[in-house]
Amino acid sequence: MALIVQKYGGTSVGNTERIKNVAARVAKSRAQGDQVVVVVSAMSGVTDNLIKMAKDIMPLPTEREMDMLLATGEQTTIALTAMALHAIGVEAVSFTGAQAGIVTDGVHTKAKIQNITPSQVHGMLDSGKVVIVAGFQGQTKEGQITTLGRGGSDLTAIALAAALSADLCQIYTDVDGVYTADPRIVKTARKLPEISYDEMLELASLGAKVMQSRSVEFAKKFGVVFEVRSSLNDNPGTIVKEETASMEDVVIRGVSLDKNQAKVTLLSVPDRPGVASRVFKALADATINVDMIVQNVSHGSGVPTTDLSFTVDKPELLKATKVINGLKQEIGFSEFTADEKIGKLSIVGVGMRSHSGVAAKMFDTLAQNGVNIDMISTSEIKISVIINLEKGEAAMRAVHQAFIG
Amino acid sequence: MALIVQKYGGTSVGNTERIKNVAARVAKSRAQGDQVVVVVSAMSGVTDNLIKMAKDIMPLPTEREMDMLLATGEQTTIALTAMALHAIGVEAVSFTGAQAGIVTDGVHTKAKIQNITPSQVHGMLDSGKVVIVAGFQGQTKEGQITTLGRGGSDLTAIALAAALSADLCQIYTDVDGVYTADPRIVKTARKLPEISYDEMLELASLGAKVMQSRSVEFAKKFGVVFEVRSSLNDNPGTIVKEETASMEDVVIRGVSLDKNQAKVTLLSVPDRPGVASRVFKALADATINVDMIVQNVSHGSGVPTTDLSFTVDKPELLKATKVINGLKQEIGFSEFTADEKIGKLSIVGVGMRSHSGVAAKMFDTLAQNGVNIDMISTSEIKISVIINLEKGEAAMRAVHQAFIG
Repeated sequence: MALIVQKYGGTSVGNTERIKNVAARVAKSRAQGDQVVVVVSAMSGVTDNLIKMAKDIMPLPTEREMDMLLATGEQTTIALTAMALHAIGVEAVSFTGAQAGIVTDGVHTKAKIQNITPSQVHGMLDSGKVVIVAGFQGQTKEGQITTLGRGGSDLTAIALAAALSADLCQIYTDVDGVYTADPRIVKTARKLPEISYDEMLELASLGAKVMQSRSVEFAKKFGVVFEVRSSLNDNPGTIVKEETASMEDVVIRGVSLDKNQAKVTLLSVPDRPGVASRVFKALADATINVDMIVQNVSHGSGVPTTDLSFTVDKPELLKATKVINGLKQEIGFSEFTADEKIGKLSIVGVGMRSHSGVAAKMFDTLAQNGVNIDMISTSEIKISVIINLEKGEAAMRAVHQAFIG
Repeated sequence: MALIVQKYGGTSVGNTERIKNVAARVAKSRAQGDQVVVVVSAMSGVTDNLIKMAKDIMPLPTEREMDMLLATGEQTTIALTAMALHAIGVEAVSFTGAQAGIVTDGVHTKAKIQNITPSQVHGMLDSGKVVIVAGFQGQTKEGQITTLGRGGSDLTAIALAAALSADLCQIYTDVDGVYTADPRIVKTARKLPEISYDEMLELASLGAKVMQSRSVEFAKKFGVVFEVRSSLNDNPGTIVKEETASMEDVVIRGVSLDKNQAKVTLLSVPDRPGVASRVFKALADATINVDMIVQNVSHGSGVPTTDLSFTVDKPELLKATKVINGLKQEIGFSEFTADEKIGKLSIVGVGMRSHSGVAAKMFDTLAQNGVNIDMISTSEIKISVIINLEKGEAAMRAVHQAFIG
């Protein structure tokens, strides 16, 4: 008898019919003799509707009250899911985050889980019930309702799996698993049977929107092995776990293309200490998230100058250019350019650590396909390049072909 | 500085605009220096929608899960109401029933309040905040979410007013207060400045649908004086309180007409011990609520027989006739009749205790207007008659004219 934590996202519980499908799936696991904890999100659309009402009342609603409001979304789903199990004769009980013993800090709308005391969950499992837990929410030790922010339901599932020492944690979503590349772009892309936490983290941060990084980080920290799989079929998904020796045999785990970045370049920036920090402090103060940063060696006589490039999410480009404009006098760069027509192509794999020549092979493949490289950034298990957006998909296919097939 | 509990029903908080209106009204009370506790219901339509989803999944949803589900309705309203106060610069904080310290028994969907520990509410009031409490809900001492059943939000307000020793409890609704009769039928009906708990109870049970009886009973038990008033204007409403000597000067407080009753008569019922109990036990087992019961002296030689009449809510008539049909063999009455075309006309007033001839005057008025009386039933402060439905409204006007003007 195994203890399984299953998480179903907003699309999987999007209406009462789909909730019945989830119940049928849970019943199947239960019928195999397993103990099952089910974590559910708010039904898709519900959270957006609550936010809309709040904004009708107040453009920037109080965060404590936003948590009070949004927590109702998951509470609705747990009750309906428990009913759907009852309807097919499966004993089940629903718990809010608070009732499941999920204690968080008091940072409303993006609370962190501090600890989980799942004694009530254990009690119900031992009495033979399926336990349905509201994802995305918790309670401070003073009894305030909190929410965990984006990707919060995944986090609830993984944290509960850790606290319960679950044998398996399944993240049900609308994709089959993690692929070597987006199958809509690369026809030969294939589903990965397994992937390491670090590779998953790199892919998550690259826009392969299966899961938020924080949930993967949490799983890595507590050694929670989890499976990403589809709620629409019975295909095995992708197991995410600690790196194993055999994983290194595969040089490249996946290829990703992020079309949502824009590039800003400051030309002829005086190469004085503190200039870069001034730029990125100003961007951080404006809550603009910066992804890649590239600065090369400086040149010139007198005060040497250099070019400084970085990328931001496309929707934040306008805000970023305003910030940079405001710094022109102070920093004294000659001019700056902004380019939305870029794509960020990345290859990820723990295997590249033990295989030399990976970067060379990637760059060569791009050159052979007539793709110019604007910027390069590397980590231990990732190589990213900024290229022309129009050539992005063709470049992705070529690189996938070269490394994976 | 007074402590006021204000309750706003589902229509008063039916959309974000109306919630803003409620906030404006609360702010006015607060600006007068009063401490304010606001109890709100679910936005109108929300509860029905949740019930519909539940019934989509399961015709008879589990009661614990219904409570989990329905409690989200009021939780949504408290968060939005707190935001609406914040938006106009009033400090406010929302509490679920559990957070407000409302402890109930474990009878899901119709829990009874066992006690209230409003220490958190007091703390927030003392720090200058308006406290918004979710009506209709509480929590068992084991932490299970419960709801209080029909009229539950009124009950929350009155129970909180008792626990907080509030100076005033205002029940805001879509009517101006309690009237001597339905103003849509009786043009000369007027709003009552005050009414006793017992009179209010009789009127409530007579279908003057301002409040559920249980809230009035609770108020009577704990001596909570409350005012029923409109959330749409600033008119004073009706104060409901313990009977005072001066109240007896008024013979009749109000006249009501209940068009929702149907009458069943069993003819020539053998007058043996246990027959009536057999009939009403069978109706109770079928969860049919019986209102008036009339049986007169028996007559005939041999085993004397009598006629037995009772009234039920119209929607339950079909069910009732089936039950009665099933008893025909066993009890041996000759036949039974069912009549939907009846109205129940009642006059209510604590003053009738000290004024003789009230019944005579009522019956005389009806006779003068050509209205035949089918059944009569009286209590200490009420006289009800069953009459022809078609003559109901004219009879109501005539009786109102005779006693009130």
